[in-house]
Amino acid sequence: MLAVMFDLTDYLNRHRARVETFLLARLPRENARPARLHRAMRYSVLAGGKRIRPILAIAAAQACGGPDDPALAAGAAVELLHTYTLIHDDLPCMDNDVLRRGKPTCHVAFGEANALLAGDALQALAFEWLAGLPAAADPVRLVRVLAEAAGSLGVVGGQVEDLQAEGAPPSAKRLRFIHQRKTAVLIEAATRLGAIAAGAAEADIRRVGRYGRHLGLAFQAADDILNATASADALGKPVGSDQARGKLTVVAVHGLSAARRQARELARAAQAALAGLPGPVEPLRALARYTVRRQN
Amino acid sequence: MLAVMFDLTDYLNRHRARVETFLLARLPRENARPARLHRAMRYSVLAGGKRIRPILAIAAAQACGGPDDPALAAGAAVELLHTYTLIHDDLPCMDNDVLRRGKPTCHVAFGEANALLAGDALQALAFEWLAGLPAAADPVRLVRVLAEAAGSLGVVGGQVEDLQAEGAPPSAKRLRFIHQRKTAVLIEAATRLGAIAAGAAEADIRRVGRYGRHLGLAFQAADDILNATASADALGKPVGSDQARGKLTVVAVHGLSAARRQARELARAAQAALAGLPGPVEPLRALARYTVRRQN
Repeated sequence: MLAVMFDLTDYLNRHRARVETFLLARLPRENARPARLHRAMRYSVLAGGKRIRPILAIAAAQACGGPDDPALAAGAAVELLHTYTLIHDDLPCMDNDVLRRGKPTCHVAFGEANALLAGDALQALAFEWLAGLPAAADPVRLVRVLAEAAGSLGVVGGQVEDLQAEGAPPSAKRLRFIHQRKTAVLIEAATRLGAIAAGAAEADIRRVGRYGRHLGLAFQAADDILNATASADALGKPVGSDQARGKLTVVAVHGLSAARRQARELARAAQAALAGLPGPVEPLRALARYTVRRQN
Repeated sequence: MLAVMFDLTDYLNRHRARVETFLLARLPRENARPARLHRAMRYSVLAGGKRIRPILAIAAAQACGGPDDPALAAGAAVELLHTYTLIHDDLPCMDNDVLRRGKPTCHVAFGEANALLAGDALQALAFEWLAGLPAAADPVRLVRVLAEAAGSLGVVGGQVEDLQAEGAPPSAKRLRFIHQRKTAVLIEAATRLGAIAAGAAEADIRRVGRYGRHLGLAFQAADDILNATASADALGKPVGSDQARGKLTVVAVHGLSAARRQARELARAAQAALAGLPGPVEPLRALARYTVRRQN
């Protein structure tokens, strides 16, 4: 095999464009009734995220040597679910954030009730999309994996623990528990869903799952570091808000330089999990390196 | 066949007990982490509802001549979904209700953030339960039907329209649109899920679906009538709250006596849809009659 430089920026741009096209075409139209609800859903989903989760699903399918179209659809469903958690997370009774990706949050733009309901509808839509995939993509298993990741032992459980931990004494164990559920679980689900949808072998589904778990923790550590250090312009939201709120973060618990070291180690562990996969793993490798270097 | 009197009270008691046992055993334990979230979920689900939706799923399976155990599980998932919509509906940014079934609402008992998240987790759990059913119950289709009923064109869409209609001029057309989505869609889903899980023929799934649609509208009309007329004790929540809020109700649009007539006609239309079903339809018939006569 020829050793060619892998161009991650080009890879991300190409697949992000596929994800945007898919979301744009498949989300309910703004003129469909109730129009305000559909506008709120589109506003939040199409706010220009990095689309890391669907791109991970695609890259995982490729690394397993499978087709990546079903993984794109499955990854788009994960993106809906992720977006709903952001909308609810931003609500006044939760983090009460007014900016997200440089734009007013959903409840600021559409009112609290509509934001709540837009989030609820997006969660339902995520499962509708998965259940609409062809039998070869194993839709029942996709639903099961995403539902577990989304539920009280996954993302929602992590958010509850996160809220309870505000102002609590720093604890490395509690922090890991929260990050595993709040972030890593859904990133792991994205990679597993991509592999399952591509018809991957069980051993390979486990490999990309392990990659996703480590990457998710690296991702959250990088997020904490950015929240503590980046500029508001680069971040698209207020800086230092975690600290102001007394959030349990990797930086608060371990300090900045240990947090940076931890993020790098997690990204390395993620890459190590890729050994043995039958397809091209360079995209997943590069994504792991990028995760701990990104500036927003 | 012998003409025997059908004892609806006994039927409801027996099957409600099955539903309670199922929910009690299958909901996440209170001591599982995060305990507070699981307590909030159990608190709301086990608050002693009538379990009309799971019982309808069971009765629909029986009317289609199929087994009713898969229908019980599918109906329990519908009950989770129904409970999540109640929790979110009661939140301060929505109806801001403090009492539900004679007990403090979830956000009064557990705080707003926990209630929001308990609702979110219950929606995910509903899909997890459906996706966990054996292949013979057609779990993919169950997920698809429930997700459509739950989404922006179903329950959530109905809630948005309901909120927007507060204080609006009475309109029969708008009212029907709201009731179809807010209530009838999920009752129809319950009967269809029961039939699908039982492996019913397509024509029979359509029959119980039509029954459920009419019954759902009758149910909502009866709810509106009760809200306008019953005692707070019988209802377990404040009376006349719809009127105070300027809600669009059958009573507000058509007046009390026309509302009563409409509820009876809808219940009759529901029963008419049962013709041709291969199994015992007396439970569904009796449920339709009961719906327009109930006092709470």
